[in-house]
Amino acid sequence: MSLKDIFAARTQRMKASEIRELLKLLDQPGILSFAGGIPDPELFPSGAFAEAMADIMETDSDVALQYSVSEGYLPLRQWIADHMATIGVPCEAQSVLITSGSQQALDYLGKLFLSPGDTALVNWPTYMGALGAFNPYEPRYGQLSVNGNRSASDYAAEAEASNGRVKFAYLSADFSNPTGETVDQRGREALLAMADELDCAVIEDAAYQALRYEGQDVPPILALELARKGHIDSCRTIYCGSFSKTLSPGLRVGWVVAAQSVIQQLVLMKQAADLHSSTFNQMAVHRVAEKCFEDHVHSLRTVYGQRRGAMLKALDAYMPEGVSWTRPEGGMFVWVTLPRGIDGAGLLTTALDKYQLAFVPGRAFFADGSGGNTLRLSFSCADEAMIDEGMQRLGQAIRTQLT
Amino acid sequence: MSLKDIFAARTQRMKASEIRELLKLLDQPGILSFAGGIPDPELFPSGAFAEAMADIMETDSDVALQYSVSEGYLPLRQWIADHMATIGVPCEAQSVLITSGSQQALDYLGKLFLSPGDTALVNWPTYMGALGAFNPYEPRYGQLSVNGNRSASDYAAEAEASNGRVKFAYLSADFSNPTGETVDQRGREALLAMADELDCAVIEDAAYQALRYEGQDVPPILALELARKGHIDSCRTIYCGSFSKTLSPGLRVGWVVAAQSVIQQLVLMKQAADLHSSTFNQMAVHRVAEKCFEDHVHSLRTVYGQRRGAMLKALDAYMPEGVSWTRPEGGMFVWVTLPRGIDGAGLLTTALDKYQLAFVPGRAFFADGSGGNTLRLSFSCADEAMIDEGMQRLGQAIRTQLT
Repeated sequence: MSLKDIFAARTQRMKASEIRELLKLLDQPGILSFAGGIPDPELFPSGAFAEAMADIMETDSDVALQYSVSEGYLPLRQWIADHMATIGVPCEAQSVLITSGSQQALDYLGKLFLSPGDTALVNWPTYMGALGAFNPYEPRYGQLSVNGNRSASDYAAEAEASNGRVKFAYLSADFSNPTGETVDQRGREALLAMADELDCAVIEDAAYQALRYEGQDVPPILALELARKGHIDSCRTIYCGSFSKTLSPGLRVGWVVAAQSVIQQLVLMKQAADLHSSTFNQMAVHRVAEKCFEDHVHSLRTVYGQRRGAMLKALDAYMPEGVSWTRPEGGMFVWVTLPRGIDGAGLLTTALDKYQLAFVPGRAFFADGSGGNTLRLSFSCADEAMIDEGMQRLGQAIRTQLT
Repeated sequence: MSLKDIFAARTQRMKASEIRELLKLLDQPGILSFAGGIPDPELFPSGAFAEAMADIMETDSDVALQYSVSEGYLPLRQWIADHMATIGVPCEAQSVLITSGSQQALDYLGKLFLSPGDTALVNWPTYMGALGAFNPYEPRYGQLSVNGNRSASDYAAEAEASNGRVKFAYLSADFSNPTGETVDQRGREALLAMADELDCAVIEDAAYQALRYEGQDVPPILALELARKGHIDSCRTIYCGSFSKTLSPGLRVGWVVAAQSVIQQLVLMKQAADLHSSTFNQMAVHRVAEKCFEDHVHSLRTVYGQRRGAMLKALDAYMPEGVSWTRPEGGMFVWVTLPRGIDGAGLLTTALDKYQLAFVPGRAFFADGSGGNTLRLSFSCADEAMIDEGMQRLGQAIRTQLT
C-alpha cells in the first residue's frame, strides 16, 4: 500500500529543488559558500525586535496570541499603504493583504489565475521559487521578453495552441533573483502595454526592490500603471512585497497590493488556506518598521553595497577570458555565464571537491531546463576577504574545465 | 477591465463564509456571543511565552529571525514525536511536518490528493474550514457515515459515477467542530477497515483532542492503525495536530504526522507554498510546550469543563420541548437541533435583533447546504453567568419561532 498511488496529478509537477539538495552540502565546515540567497543574520535589527516583542507581550499578549482577520493586522496594512505611497503607489489599507512571506503570495496567485494548460510568462532565467509555487497549478511557461522581440499576438497564439491563455507575466523587475538585473522604465512600460493587449495580469515580485546600491530608482511597475490609469482598482499589476530581505525572513511577513477584486479573492483564499498570518509577528514587524525601517534599510544598503563592489572587483581580477557576468545595481546576486560547453552543475562538483567552494548552478532557474552554462553567486553573507578568496578559487575551478 | 474574468475555474468554489460575515456583527457592544470557536485569551500562557520569547531574542535571535527548513524546527518536531508517543503513536521526528496551524495542513492535503471530481468523504455536518480548504481543488463530497449503514462499495460507486475516486475520509473524531461529538473505538476501527477497502487516506483532524473533560480517552485513529500495521510508514491515516486550542492560535503552529511518502511530498509542497512556518514562533512554542504543556492543558480542562457543564445545565433548564442537543465530553461546542421548520439563520436574526444573542447557524457546516434547523454554540469564552443568561435568551428566541 502506498498513498503515492492516489496523489493528485499535480504532484507530478512538484519535485525537490536543486538548491534545497545543495544547501544540505553546505553544512559541511570549511566550505566558502556563495550559494544561499539569504540576508546576513548579523544585520538583523534584533534589538528593535526584542524590544517590540517584549512590549507586545507586556501590553497586548491577549491580542497577539489570538486568532485575527485574514486580511492582516490593520496598523501594519496602514503602514504598508503609507510606505507604498513613498514609492509611487498611493493606496489605502484595503488594497493591502498580509501574506506569510511573498512566497505565499506567489502560491496564492498561481491558485487564483492558473487552470491546467494556462500560460504563465516568466523570464529565462527566473526565480526558481516562483516556478515551484506555480507548478502545482499545472501551467505552461512562455518565455517573457521585455525587450520587445516578441509580440502579444505571439504569446497569445502559443498559449492558445496549448489549450489555455496567458494569465499573467511574472517578473522581479529590480535586481532579480537570480540575475541581479533591473528592467528599465521603457521595458516596464512595454510590458504594461503588452499586458493590456493580452488582458492578463502582471505579477511584480518586489522582494529586493529596497536594496539599491547604485544608480537611480526605477518606479515600480504598479506605480507606472497607476499613473496611467488613475486608480489602483483599474490596475492589472499585482505587487508582492516582503520584509524578508529588509527586516527578517524568519518571521514570514510579506504583502500584496492590488485591485480590490484581486485582494478580496485572495482574502477568501487565505482564510481557507491558513486563516491568517501570525498575529504576533505582524504586530512585531509593524512596530519595528514604524520605528526604524528607513534607517535600517539605509544601513543594509551600505554593507551589501560594499560586498557587491568587492565581488565585482574580484570577478574582474580572477575570471578567465570567456566568462561574463552581470553588474547588478542592488539585491544579493551576480549571475555568471560560462563559456559554452562548461556545465555549472559539473563545475560545482569540482568546486566543492577541490576548492571548498559553493554556488548555485543556473539550470534550475530556467523553466525549460536550459542555461546549463550559468551560475548564481550571492554576496549577501560574505565579507570582502571571503569574496576575494572565493572568486579566486572560482577562477581556478573554471580554468580546470577550460583545458 | 476586470481580472475577475481570468480567474481560474476553481475560484468559483471559493466563497465568503457565513461565520466570517457573522463575526463582523459581533463587534457590536452588548452582544452575548456564543458564535466564535476561539480559545479564551485569558487562558493563554502569556507569562511562559513572554519568558521564552525574551530568552530566544537574548540567545538565538540570529537563528530565530532567519530562514529555516521547510520540515520545521527539529527540536519542536522531536517534542511532538515524543508527545505523539504518549497518545499511542510512537514515531520519529522525521514523521512530523510543522504547518502554520492545522488549517494549512487541510489545504495541503486537499492539494496533495484531490483532482477535480475526486471524492472527499466528510461528515454531515463537518468543520466548515475543511470544506473551505478542500473546495479550491474541486472535489465532490460524499456523506461519511461511521455507523456502518453505508458500505465501501456504495462510496466507490458514487465516486466513480462522478468521474473520480474516493481519495480520503476527513473527520475530527474527538469533540468535533461543530457537533462536539466523539467517534468511539468501534467506529474508528470500522472507518479504518473501510479505508483499507477503498484504498484511500484518512485525515484525522485532532484540533480538540487534548481537551477532554469527561469520560475515557479513545485512542487516535492513527494509534489504532499503527497497532494493527506495525509501522507508521504503512499507515494511511494522516494526523493533523495543532497548538491553537492549547497554547496559542495567533502564533499559527500546527503539525502533521504521517507516513514518509506523505511527509516528503508535503515538505515539497510547503517549500513551494510558503518556504517554512515562522522560525521564531516554532522556537517559542517548543520552549513553552517543553516547559508547561501538560500542566497548562490540565488547567484548560478544568475551566472549559466547568463552562461545558454550565451550558448543558442551562440548556436543560431553558430549552423548549422539541429542541435537542449534544452532550460533548470535550472541546468547545454544543450542537443544537431545532424542531423541523425553524431555520437557524432566521433564528439568528431574531436573536441578534431582540435578544442581543449570537451563535452560528448550522447550514454552513453541511457540504450539501442542508441542516437548516441546526445551530452551533461555543462555551469556550463565556463564564457561567453569561452562559446562564445566554441560554435563557436562546430559549426565549426559539419560543418566538414556535408560535
